[in-house]
Amino acid sequence: MTPKAQNTAQGILFTDQYQLTMAQLYFRMGVHEKHAQFDHFFRKYPDYGSHQAGYCINAGLEQLIDWMRDARFGDEEIEYLRSQTGRKGERVFGDDFLVWLRDNGNFDGITLRAIPEGRVVHPNVPLTVVQGPLAMAQILETALLNQLNYPILIATKAARIKGACRQQPLLEFGVRRGPDTGVNAGIRAALIGGADYSSCVGISRALGFPPKGTHAHSMVQVFLALDEGAEGELGAFRAFAEIYPDDCVLLVDTIDTLQSGVPNAITVFEELRRRGHEPVGIRLDSGDLAFLSIQSAKMLNEAGFPDTKIFLSNELDELVIWQIITQIEQEAHHYGFKPNDLISRLVFGVGTRLITSMGDSALSGVYKLVAIDDNGGWKPTIKIAETTAKTLNPGYKLVWRIYDKRGNATADLISTNGYDPGEMDNLLLRHPIDHSKSRTLRRERISKIEPILVKVLDEGKIVRESPPIEEMRRLRERDMDRLDAGVKRLMNPHIYHVSLTQELWALKQNLIKSVNGNSSKR
Amino acid sequence: MTPKAQNTAQGILFTDQYQLTMAQLYFRMGVHEKHAQFDHFFRKYPDYGSHQAGYCINAGLEQLIDWMRDARFGDEEIEYLRSQTGRKGERVFGDDFLVWLRDNGNFDGITLRAIPEGRVVHPNVPLTVVQGPLAMAQILETALLNQLNYPILIATKAARIKGACRQQPLLEFGVRRGPDTGVNAGIRAALIGGADYSSCVGISRALGFPPKGTHAHSMVQVFLALDEGAEGELGAFRAFAEIYPDDCVLLVDTIDTLQSGVPNAITVFEELRRRGHEPVGIRLDSGDLAFLSIQSAKMLNEAGFPDTKIFLSNELDELVIWQIITQIEQEAHHYGFKPNDLISRLVFGVGTRLITSMGDSALSGVYKLVAIDDNGGWKPTIKIAETTAKTLNPGYKLVWRIYDKRGNATADLISTNGYDPGEMDNLLLRHPIDHSKSRTLRRERISKIEPILVKVLDEGKIVRESPPIEEMRRLRERDMDRLDAGVKRLMNPHIYHVSLTQELWALKQNLIKSVNGNSSKR
Repeated sequence: MTPKAQNTAQGILFTDQYQLTMAQLYFRMGVHEKHAQFDHFFRKYPDYGSHQAGYCINAGLEQLIDWMRDARFGDEEIEYLRSQTGRKGERVFGDDFLVWLRDNGNFDGITLRAIPEGRVVHPNVPLTVVQGPLAMAQILETALLNQLNYPILIATKAARIKGACRQQPLLEFGVRRGPDTGVNAGIRAALIGGADYSSCVGISRALGFPPKGTHAHSMVQVFLALDEGAEGELGAFRAFAEIYPDDCVLLVDTIDTLQSGVPNAITVFEELRRRGHEPVGIRLDSGDLAFLSIQSAKMLNEAGFPDTKIFLSNELDELVIWQIITQIEQEAHHYGFKPNDLISRLVFGVGTRLITSMGDSALSGVYKLVAIDDNGGWKPTIKIAETTAKTLNPGYKLVWRIYDKRGNATADLISTNGYDPGEMDNLLLRHPIDHSKSRTLRRERISKIEPILVKVLDEGKIVRESPPIEEMRRLRERDMDRLDAGVKRLMNPHIYHVSLTQELWALKQNLIKSVNGNSSKR
Repeated sequence: MTPKAQNTAQGILFTDQYQLTMAQLYFRMGVHEKHAQFDHFFRKYPDYGSHQAGYCINAGLEQLIDWMRDARFGDEEIEYLRSQTGRKGERVFGDDFLVWLRDNGNFDGITLRAIPEGRVVHPNVPLTVVQGPLAMAQILETALLNQLNYPILIATKAARIKGACRQQPLLEFGVRRGPDTGVNAGIRAALIGGADYSSCVGISRALGFPPKGTHAHSMVQVFLALDEGAEGELGAFRAFAEIYPDDCVLLVDTIDTLQSGVPNAITVFEELRRRGHEPVGIRLDSGDLAFLSIQSAKMLNEAGFPDTKIFLSNELDELVIWQIITQIEQEAHHYGFKPNDLISRLVFGVGTRLITSMGDSALSGVYKLVAIDDNGGWKPTIKIAETTAKTLNPGYKLVWRIYDKRGNATADLISTNGYDPGEMDNLLLRHPIDHSKSRTLRRERISKIEPILVKVLDEGKIVRESPPIEEMRRLRERDMDRLDAGVKRLMNPHIYHVSLTQELWALKQNLIKSVNGNSSKR
């Protein structure tokens, strides 16, 4: 595939075929320019099998908006659609539709409200709300889901892993096991969600972060094989320290961590120090990382390097890191030092399990038609699914985050348009599915009510510039600080409340009845 | 991010920072242009938890070669590296190295041997062997792993799912849940591994496949909400049939599959037939797909549509499809028809679980230095890992696939260079790890010995053009036909033998001894 073909495949044709056939149908019915509203939301938190998320981190919006700005049907795309034929050889797309698409096939008419990147988000809450001409809002579905679902998944995993790291640095190392160029979006999400830096050069540069790294086993192997000066691993370490005297992190497990790697590293660190440089650290990439951290720290301490960092890598994730830290806490004192003195030296490099969200590799994000403008008024739409849990929340909606007296987020409340919880004495929170469940929050128990959907695009124009990633991280940290510890728990988290107002709940019930009535009339 | 920044991030800087710092070190040591050999192989088959793969399908090579052809250090990349600074503010990369990199920073010196895309492959067998100047072969690591690991993972999953589909069509539907633009590589791999078509327009076009699709719930919702002619779902179906009379597949579960969707579809199908068109089928996207298939088929049969297809979608994978087919086999006769009459009408649309390889979202593919040319002769290199299983197979190697008398592949044999199993009366196959295990194959029990590594790049020049995807599929089908049923089993597959020749085994043991000797001398 040529780079040009690849770029075309990443442009407006980065969509499902049925979006285009439906768009033509809307065109033929004359409804293609009626304004429609689609909600993007996810149905369930990631469930990693042995552990589960109790919150997600929103991400991906800026990339989506960048894509929308450039994606449009040009001559090449129109020609291709003109060439498509169906089962009987007839053309799939008519000239009338293609002429319309050539002139209108862009996202300049789309309005977006969204929850900002970096914020904590929950299931069934609209994260991105799309309004615009039906045909183009329909065509947007595939790319929007693609460009938001994966980043949310990875930002969420990064937040969990960062949480497990205590205050220690988290480096993203996953390009090699990640999904082709998609990893760049994943790395961006990881940087929003919790990774401090990435090893990947290109995307780090694009986002303004310095890429981080140490060295690989191959470097040591070269010295072992070529035997330059017969020094093997020690020679490799010396060469590295010579060239990077102030950035010297040595990978110590090519031969034998405690018998060879750490002693050789100490030799080189001593030489470095004599030359006036301070070593940065060692990296452990195999074996029992907790045990080896303790033993290495002991050797480094005895050699006079009590502050050198210990980088850990090799199939890490939130549980493995939690286990490593727990083991250090339990065992460090047997070796004569305080657990925190060691933990505060650790740096975690996480690859595969972060960039692929190992355990749950997809977010259940969907994009659903919830309202259509029928000659001047939003008409709510619904899909009666096989399970009540999957039945849509219809119409134009607002989302409010309710904070309790301690300042913690206690619920997300979804309302119809026009509702203002600021005016209420009490808030009635209805369970979205279970008719028998509701909860009343008295005004005095509420410290703040925050609308969390923000308009970012107004008919294609950016009305809120994406902030830098540092700002997204601050939003994340602030939201995480205001989340109950139980919700942040790695396993069996407490369930955060996502509720409907009485009005929205009633609207939904009425729509279900009316559609069921319609269908039985058939 | 601008498209330009994105393209740069996908070019030669699509690598890990440590590859560049190591390359500079090799440059400073004067070994950067020594020829090195790196093997790409995976360590374990994907393990999906409740089920496991017993083979993989190779994929990704053509895309890698396309990328290598275009990736090189230009002014922009060099300027960026020049701007990088370390911990003390000093420049990371010196001008001497950057001058060399500007002139030599490309893959024109790289030679590749590889197992062709579409072929069945196994752990620890070199799939792609890279030879070339050490610095550039090192820099290639990250992108190579990225561009091969994910496609192999997805092609493998697709082959498993295709196997579960019996002979029925498999459509790839996964863009919306896949990893950003990485899905395009995943879809290509799925098409090699077993998917017949994809719903995604752009990549289908680039690869020369027609994209496939039906319609979404939103189309029915529009008609329910706007109530054009008060026909709701029926009106939506009529509109679709009107516009696509010869390609009419109707999604029947927006309201109620059996009460509303299927009866409305039948009404429209009858109308279509009166106008001289034959309907294609219905799609079921929720509920008990086996039960609903049977009931829908019964209704369609009674209405005179015994041949219309039944498209199934909704979180399918190889186990779910297996279960659906099993249930149909067990229950169809209760409803008066033969299971195969129904099964032969099914079309499977698989999204999330294929494109993310749900259950095991990463291939354990690695890229390891195995030899370096020390003034005219390949010198094998090794890494003594913490586990014997991870210790490298050193040196320049050949790979032979051995077929038994039935014509089935019985083992992959890895040998040193110069070995010719055609000359042997008996083949001694050594277990790669367990010293006590070996197997002797007598000549008369062998029907064929096939070298499976093929030279594809010779110092940057393509010497074997990538065949079309159809040819890769034929390779896959042929290899799958020659694989024991036990190896193809979805759960607890039989373990295919990957063995070493006596010579290679002995070389490995000697190297381990010599490195251990070296390290204890320290």
